[in-house]
Amino acid sequence: MSTLTPEEPTVQARIQASFDKQGLMGTLGASILRIAPGEVDIALSPSSAVSQQHGFVHAGAVSAIADTAAGYAALSLMPPGAGVLTTEFKINLVAPAAGEQIVARGRVVKAGRTLTLAQTEVFAETAGKERLVALLTATLMKIEGRDGVAD
Amino acid sequence: MSTLTPEEPTVQARIQASFDKQGLMGTLGASILRIAPGEVDIALSPSSAVSQQHGFVHAGAVSAIADTAAGYAALSLMPPGAGVLTTEFKINLVAPAAGEQIVARGRVVKAGRTLTLAQTEVFAETAGKERLVALLTATLMKIEGRDGVAD
Amino acid sequence: MSTLTPEEPTVQARIQASFDKQGLMGTLGASILRIAPGEVDIALSPSSAVSQQHGFVHAGAVSAIADTAAGYAALSLMPPGAGVLTTEFKINLVAPAAGEQIVARGRVVKAGRTLTLAQTEVFAETAGKERLVALLTATLMKIEGRDGVAD
Amino acid sequence: MSTLTPEEPTVQARIQASFDKQGLMGTLGASILRIAPGEVDIALSPSSAVSQQHGFVHAGAVSAIADTAAGYAALSLMPPGAGVLTTEFKINLVAPAAGEQIVARGRVVKAGRTLTLAQTEVFAETAGKERLVALLTATLMKIEGRDGVAD
Repeated sequence: MSTLTPEEPTVQARIQASFDKQGLMGTLGASILRIAPGEVDIALSPSSAVSQQHGFVHAGAVSAIADTAAGYAALSLMPPGAGVLTTEFKINLVAPAAGEQIVARGRVVKAGRTLTLAQTEVFAETAGKERLVALLTATLMKIEGRDGVAD
Repeated sequence: MSTLTPEEPTVQARIQASFDKQGLMGTLGASILRIAPGEVDIALSPSSAVSQQHGFVHAGAVSAIADTAAGYAALSLMPPGAGVLTTEFKINLVAPAAGEQIVARGRVVKAGRTLTLAQTEVFAETAGKERLVALLTATLMKIEGRDGVAD
Repeated sequence: MSTLTPEEPTVQARIQASFDKQGLMGTLGASILRIAPGEVDIALSPSSAVSQQHGFVHAGAVSAIADTAAGYAALSLMPPGAGVLTTEFKINLVAPAAGEQIVARGRVVKAGRTLTLAQTEVFAETAGKERLVALLTATLMKIEGRDGVAD
Repeated sequence: MSTLTPEEPTVQARIQASFDKQGLMGTLGASILRIAPGEVDIALSPSSAVSQQHGFVHAGAVSAIADTAAGYAALSLMPPGAGVLTTEFKINLVAPAAGEQIVARGRVVKAGRTLTLAQTEVFAETAGKERLVALLTATLMKIEGRDGVAD
């Protein structure tokens, strides 16, 4: 963390505040693990509240934290006041999401003027080991000057 | 509905029972509106419990009902005992999801031996009018003979 | 075609001229079948020049005409002078592309201010029948005021 | 290359032979740069023969080599006699594809029993520097026992 610039605490506070306004994250019980420039990790605990019919974590819940991690990774590189909206994402689900904790690690691949491409790897952690369960790529759009759409 | 075959009440019961086991759908407050061969519609009521930071319904919640509608549309054409898993989906979010009700209409595009392609249109309904907010395409895999993965 | 407005012949000429500048379409032997507002159809003849290793039309060639059909469907609704670039697409390949002719039918799903969502269905035609072989969804970006990027 | 196992020359010969049967790759002028277990790189020279209307390499040509790199990366881990088919891919195009050479680097992310997830990064090389122009994720299906579909 020695490479933090003075602005980063602000970025972290800004993203945490925005995350706290996401009712869905609270409903799912998700939390932010880590915020760095272009990188955001989000965790979710498996439970029946977020399950699909076979008991695994629902693809929709996996997608929700993966999309959110991608979105905040993108927002972390945008100027204050800008808002971020997901315009599309694709997710490949490569293994059932089950374990002690599901962690989505979002990373910016390319930050453009209007559009940012980010990628999120989602892992299931069990007994100190992690296994890839999903891979998401998302396009995030920077929104400026639209009422109600900031951060 | 005059084209219903005798098996369809069974299909409807099977899908409703599977849906009721999806903890996430209960957590989100989603419900099935309609089940027909190759077609399943799911509804969600916007609220702060499923919101993102600007107050719209979170892309993750939209994706969750859209994926579920696609999955059950696929399952409706599979033999009893088979299970369905999403292997991938992509969603384009074309307008903020806000309104009185969000409805995801899943339809099978092509049912293959192992893989089924389904598409879901998601609409926001307000004052009797509906507006497209998202379009999802998903690949669903038929699982047979794996313990714990049926319906 | 009775709903054509006076501008449409211009749109058709504009898209045909742009298509003729696409070296790849000439290399593949593709041609435009039809241009209407928000709709463009492109055809390709299967041959060893566009094949993959098993003799089917290569997914890359199918994608090329499907992306082009989506792009011109989007361009058909944009003002003269605007250029169109694909920012992303996803294609599901549901059957081997083989037959007398491959036809990609691109349609605009939602035309936004900056981004347009289009969808292309690709059919293989044989003996007067057509079969769906692929489904593409694409995001097209309107480019204005950038040198060299018009139409 | 010190980690090559005895089977790898065979894998390389098998993939090169399959590639040589892809008429489209010859038509585009693409060639294989490198084959290793789970990794295949393919190069394409920009020219008017593979261009779109603004003179960049067409997204369809970029997709074609990116899909092929992903497919052969997947095939490199499959047993002899198995065939590989792309069931879907998504590509994000993050910069115009222009330069001296376009290189697609395909890598297996997860090799499953039936489905393999691979990812391809596509770079444009100019004056010894490379720039990311596209990112593709693809699902490849292993085909066994179907006439005419091997390698």
